[in-house]
Amino acid sequence: MTDHNRRIVLASRPSGMVDEGTTKLEEQPVPTPGPGEALVRVTHLSIDPTIRGWMNDVASYLPPIGIGEVVRSAALGEVVASNRDDLEPGDRVFDLFGWQDYAILGAGAPAQRVPGGIPAEAALGLLGVTGMTGYFGMVDVGRVAAGDTVVVSGAAGATGSVAGQIAKILGAATVVGIAGTEEKCAWLVETAGFDHAINYRTDDIAARLRTTCPRGIDLYWDNVGGAILNTCLGQLAMRGRVVLCGAISQYNAETVTPGPANYIQLIPKRGRMEGFIVLDYADRFAEAQAKLFEWGVGGRIHTAEHIVEGLEHAPDALNVLFTGASLGKVIVRV
Amino acid sequence: MTDHNRRIVLASRPSGMVDEGTTKLEEQPVPTPGPGEALVRVTHLSIDPTIRGWMNDVASYLPPIGIGEVVRSAALGEVVASNRDDLEPGDRVFDLFGWQDYAILGAGAPAQRVPGGIPAEAALGLLGVTGMTGYFGMVDVGRVAAGDTVVVSGAAGATGSVAGQIAKILGAATVVGIAGTEEKCAWLVETAGFDHAINYRTDDIAARLRTTCPRGIDLYWDNVGGAILNTCLGQLAMRGRVVLCGAISQYNAETVTPGPANYIQLIPKRGRMEGFIVLDYADRFAEAQAKLFEWGVGGRIHTAEHIVEGLEHAPDALNVLFTGASLGKVIVRV
Repeated sequence: MTDHNRRIVLASRPSGMVDEGTTKLEEQPVPTPGPGEALVRVTHLSIDPTIRGWMNDVASYLPPIGIGEVVRSAALGEVVASNRDDLEPGDRVFDLFGWQDYAILGAGAPAQRVPGGIPAEAALGLLGVTGMTGYFGMVDVGRVAAGDTVVVSGAAGATGSVAGQIAKILGAATVVGIAGTEEKCAWLVETAGFDHAINYRTDDIAARLRTTCPRGIDLYWDNVGGAILNTCLGQLAMRGRVVLCGAISQYNAETVTPGPANYIQLIPKRGRMEGFIVLDYADRFAEAQAKLFEWGVGGRIHTAEHIVEGLEHAPDALNVLFTGASLGKVIVRV
Repeated sequence: MTDHNRRIVLASRPSGMVDEGTTKLEEQPVPTPGPGEALVRVTHLSIDPTIRGWMNDVASYLPPIGIGEVVRSAALGEVVASNRDDLEPGDRVFDLFGWQDYAILGAGAPAQRVPGGIPAEAALGLLGVTGMTGYFGMVDVGRVAAGDTVVVSGAAGATGSVAGQIAKILGAATVVGIAGTEEKCAWLVETAGFDHAINYRTDDIAARLRTTCPRGIDLYWDNVGGAILNTCLGQLAMRGRVVLCGAISQYNAETVTPGPANYIQLIPKRGRMEGFIVLDYADRFAEAQAKLFEWGVGGRIHTAEHIVEGLEHAPDALNVLFTGASLGKVIVRV
C-alpha cells in the first residue's frame, strides 16, 4: 500500500486505437472514505472492448467517459478501510472501480462481494460480466436449442469462448468458432470443445461455413460486426437468430463502415437480430453464476487468460483486444 | 368468357424495373380441369412488391418464377367449372392464380373462399394478405403496445397504411408515416388518422423524426430498406423493435446497396430487428380477418385502391409500386 493513488485518466478522445495521447497517468493522494463509504484497493482490471466505446463522445448504454476522468473499467479490489456496515477490511468486491490503485465504494452502492475462494481470473472472467454475457446472450437472447447449429465470432475472446461452450452444453449440435490465428483455432477445437474453427485471416469464411453448417446457421453470435456479420446473415437458417454482443471491427473505425447488406435475409428467413446489455440481467446474476460455477468446476467450460502486469500497461492491454494478440480474458494485475 | 387463356409469362429476368423484354403475353387454350380440379376465371390481380422479388433468380421464401412460367401473383377469381366436391361454379376463391385469365385450382389444394358480400378490393386488400401482413406484423412481430411511438415507411402503400392504423387502434400514442408525395402525406393524416406524415422526397427525415418522436421510435415498420431504415435505426428508443416487412428501395437495385450501419444501435438500445412472412400465420388468418373486418366496417381503418384495367397492364401496375405513383392497394381488373 502506497500513499499515492495512481490513476489513468482520459486525456483526449482517441481516433482509432488508443495511443500515448489518449490517457495520462496521474498521482493523487489516496482518497479518504466518507460516512457510509469504503476505500478499495484495486487489484485486477477487467479489460473489455466496451471500454473503447466509452472513450468516444457518443451516448451509449452508459455515458462517455469525460475528459480528465478516470477510465471506467470493471475491476476487482479489496476493502482497506470501511465506514459501511456491510463491508470490512479484507473483503473482496467487484465494481466499475476504473483504472486506478484506489477507489471509493460510495454510500448506498450495492456491495458486489467476491468470495475468498474464487480466483481473480474467474471472478472477472467466467463468473463475472464476461461469463454472464455469454450466459444471458445464449439462453435469453439467442434461445439456443438442442440441435442448433451455432457460429461464434471473436470465438477465442473471453465472452465468445464461453458463449460457444454454453451452446454446446445446452445441446447445440454444431458449434463453429471464428478466430484470427492458428493458435486460437487450435485452442477452440482442442481445449474448448468447439466442433470447428475458422481462421478469418486465412480461410474462405463463406466456403468454410457452407461446409461446416450445411443446413445454415441457427444462431450466430456476433462479437465483430463488419464483413463477418454480413457473411453469416447470408447463411442464416430458417428462423435464424443473430445475437449482437459487440462489434470489435468497428470500435476503432475512423470512418463509418457500411452495415450488413444481408440484413434483408431476415425477411425470407424469418430471422431475428437482437442486441442486449448484460447489466439488464442484474437480478438474475446469481442464477448465471451458479450455472457457470457448476460448469467451470465440472470441467465443462474451459477458459484462458491473458494477464498484463502493472496498472500503467492498461492502455496497451486494451489495444491487445483489437490487434487479436490475446487469447481469452485480458486482465491487468494492478 | 373467351375461349383463349391470355397469360403473361416471364420472358427474361429484369435488371431494375420491369420493361417490355421482361414479360410476354401468350394465348393458350383455356385449360380443362382434371379429376378433383376446378377451373377458375381470374377477375382481379393483387399487385404486390414481392412479385418483383420472385422475378430474380434468388431463392427466397418461394422459389423464383421460372423463365416461361406465368408470373406468380395472388389473385381473386370465380369458379367456372368444377370437379371438386367443395366448389361449384360461381364460387369466389383466392389463391396464387398468377397473371392470366384462367387458372386451375389443383386437386387437394385448399379452397380459399371469399364470401359474396366482400368487394374485390377488400378481399385482396384489407382482408387479404395485405391487411393480414399489417396485422401479424404489428401484433406478433412488433408487439405494438399502448403508448408506443410508431413509424411506418411506405406508409401510403397498401400494407403500410393498414399497419399504421392497426398500431393506432391498439393504443400507439404517436404514429408517423413516411411517404413520397404531398398527396399521400395529406391522405395519411386527414383520412388514415396518422399523427404526422413525412415526405421523404422533400423533408429532412432525421430532423422531422426527432421532432415528432422526441422519445425515440419504439416500433419502426420497414417497407423500404436503404437510407430510411438506417435513419430510423439511429433514432430507436430503448428496446425498440424494427419489423422488416419489405425493402422496396432494394428490389430493383442493380448493385448491392450498403446495409444499415446503424444496426449497431441495436446493442445499446437492446433493440430487435425481425423479419416475417405472413404465410406462416395461415392457421390464424381467420382471427386476423375477423378483426380487420370489424375495424374496416366500423370505420376505424381506411383504405385506398389504385385500380388498373386490363390484364395486359399488369407489368406496368407492378412498376407503379416502385415509382411511387400509387396510393393504397394496387389491383388489376383482369
